[in-house]
Amino acid sequence: MKVEYIEDFQKWEEGFSFYHEINVRFSETDMFGHLNNTVPFVYFEQSRIEFFKAIGFMQEWVRVDQDTIPVVADLQCDFLQQVYFDETLRVYVKAATVGVSSVDIHYRGVNGEGKAVFVGRGTMVQMSRKTGKGHPWEDGQKERLLR
Amino acid sequence: MKVEYIEDFQKWEEGFSFYHEINVRFSETDMFGHLNNTVPFVYFEQSRIEFFKAIGFMQEWVRVDQDTIPVVADLQCDFLQQVYFDETLRVYVKAATVGVSSVDIHYRGVNGEGKAVFVGRGTMVQMSRKTGKGHPWEDGQKERLLR
Amino acid sequence: MKVEYIEDFQKWEEGFSFYHEINVRFSETDMFGHLNNTVPFVYFEQSRIEFFKAIGFMQEWVRVDQDTIPVVADLQCDFLQQVYFDETLRVYVKAATVGVSSVDIHYRGVNGEGKAVFVGRGTMVQMSRKTGKGHPWEDGQKERLLR
Amino acid sequence: MKVEYIEDFQKWEEGFSFYHEINVRFSETDMFGHLNNTVPFVYFEQSRIEFFKAIGFMQEWVRVDQDTIPVVADLQCDFLQQVYFDETLRVYVKAATVGVSSVDIHYRGVNGEGKAVFVGRGTMVQMSRKTGKGHPWEDGQKERLLR
Repeated sequence: MKVEYIEDFQKWEEGFSFYHEINVRFSETDMFGHLNNTVPFVYFEQSRIEFFKAIGFMQEWVRVDQDTIPVVADLQCDFLQQVYFDETLRVYVKAATVGVSSVDIHYRGVNGEGKAVFVGRGTMVQMSRKTGKGHPWEDGQKERLLR
Repeated sequence: MKVEYIEDFQKWEEGFSFYHEINVRFSETDMFGHLNNTVPFVYFEQSRIEFFKAIGFMQEWVRVDQDTIPVVADLQCDFLQQVYFDETLRVYVKAATVGVSSVDIHYRGVNGEGKAVFVGRGTMVQMSRKTGKGHPWEDGQKERLLR
Repeated sequence: MKVEYIEDFQKWEEGFSFYHEINVRFSETDMFGHLNNTVPFVYFEQSRIEFFKAIGFMQEWVRVDQDTIPVVADLQCDFLQQVYFDETLRVYVKAATVGVSSVDIHYRGVNGEGKAVFVGRGTMVQMSRKTGKGHPWEDGQKERLLR
Repeated sequence: MKVEYIEDFQKWEEGFSFYHEINVRFSETDMFGHLNNTVPFVYFEQSRIEFFKAIGFMQEWVRVDQDTIPVVADLQCDFLQQVYFDETLRVYVKAATVGVSSVDIHYRGVNGEGKAVFVGRGTMVQMSRKTGKGHPWEDGQKERLLR
């Protein structure tokens, strides 16, 4: 396997600590008998939100009077192993790099045997509803993203 | 088959004229090889909206400044035949009965051979965001629902 | 609220003991700001499967060499309260009545304040792949469903 | 916008001819009021399948007795413009490059104003169920993919 956003797989794996556990639903399988390949992106979203909740960002973004919202700029996933109904996956999330108002989030889905079943990444931008442009991270936010 | 909301199946079938055509997606199948049973409710929603667009209701409901929104009170589906990937279904929709601020919508999904694969119904209420209560249909709306 | 399959709501509620906990995903909301009404059926499926796992039925049904599979005959849901992103729901499941090869499953989704947000039911049939007909429950299975 | 898999955007756009038209469902929006970002991958799958049907590949892959199946190796999407409920999108599909048993598929979602709302790509491999390895394209298949 070669994945462009991973230089050294072992080192990359070690950079994760946060994870969210997800059980594969029956409705998420398809007629080929495994997890449909559109579903890991749902898992990414859910796990990313749990990550943002854990560092206190999500609470702000869903406030009705809040100007800033998170916007997904891109998403990608590399499928490494088949995933089946009822497997419990740990979806690890980390901020790989942080820009002025953006963050590159990496993902690593691991099955019960500790094998990576899919990996991924995507850039998120903190946007201002008013200006429609990126809204810079405030003091302390970069640190919280990267700790 | 006996379905409590259908007295005479043939007569009931004849009451439909509006339909929306839907192609079964691969991601909507499951590992049992057929359409997952949660998906017909997605088809009901889509077809119901097309029905409401056809009679000019939906345009109002999605306006940001609009007070009234459609609220689904209940939904049910009876699964009559297996449905498979790539089948094209006609989902028929009709207003079976109309109340002061509600409407009982019936559904009938038909496959390429003309067979009913699932049938269903559900009550929708036109609700006022302000009062949180049902908002009576205006003059002409009942007629448009039932024509 | 009057729901035809519930005679005495309090008594009905007391009949549940098994539940599965589900966190509302962001992707399961819609532009009206709440849980999309097609999603409780996904929760029903997931919770029903957890119920069947808990009593040892599911393990049989997903075996490749197994002749019998569970088939959903009908499903219905009554929506009682709005459900929002990130709420944690307990979806209670019970076998209300058991037939020769079928079972009527009831559902009750409860939010963090202990309020029922949706209730539902649906008949499932244990079908034989070979005959395409209902396959009678074996000795002990009825008891396990109802205990 | 810079997307790594697109060198010259205009030239890249001109390489598409096949497209599949999709109407954005209400259930595909989220509480931020637009298309949830996990859904374009569903559109990619559906449009890719229509593409494969159009060139006669899909019919083979879904045959029960067939040894080869298409396996998605990776997927990515760049989100360029907001997409809203009820928009009709054309999702263009093309084979960008073809390997021995794989193909790099590119996607371009276009709204009613002719603007690209999302673009994407992903590698698919024709796999043999028996060997679990890539199964080389047969004579004529490469040509059909690229024409």
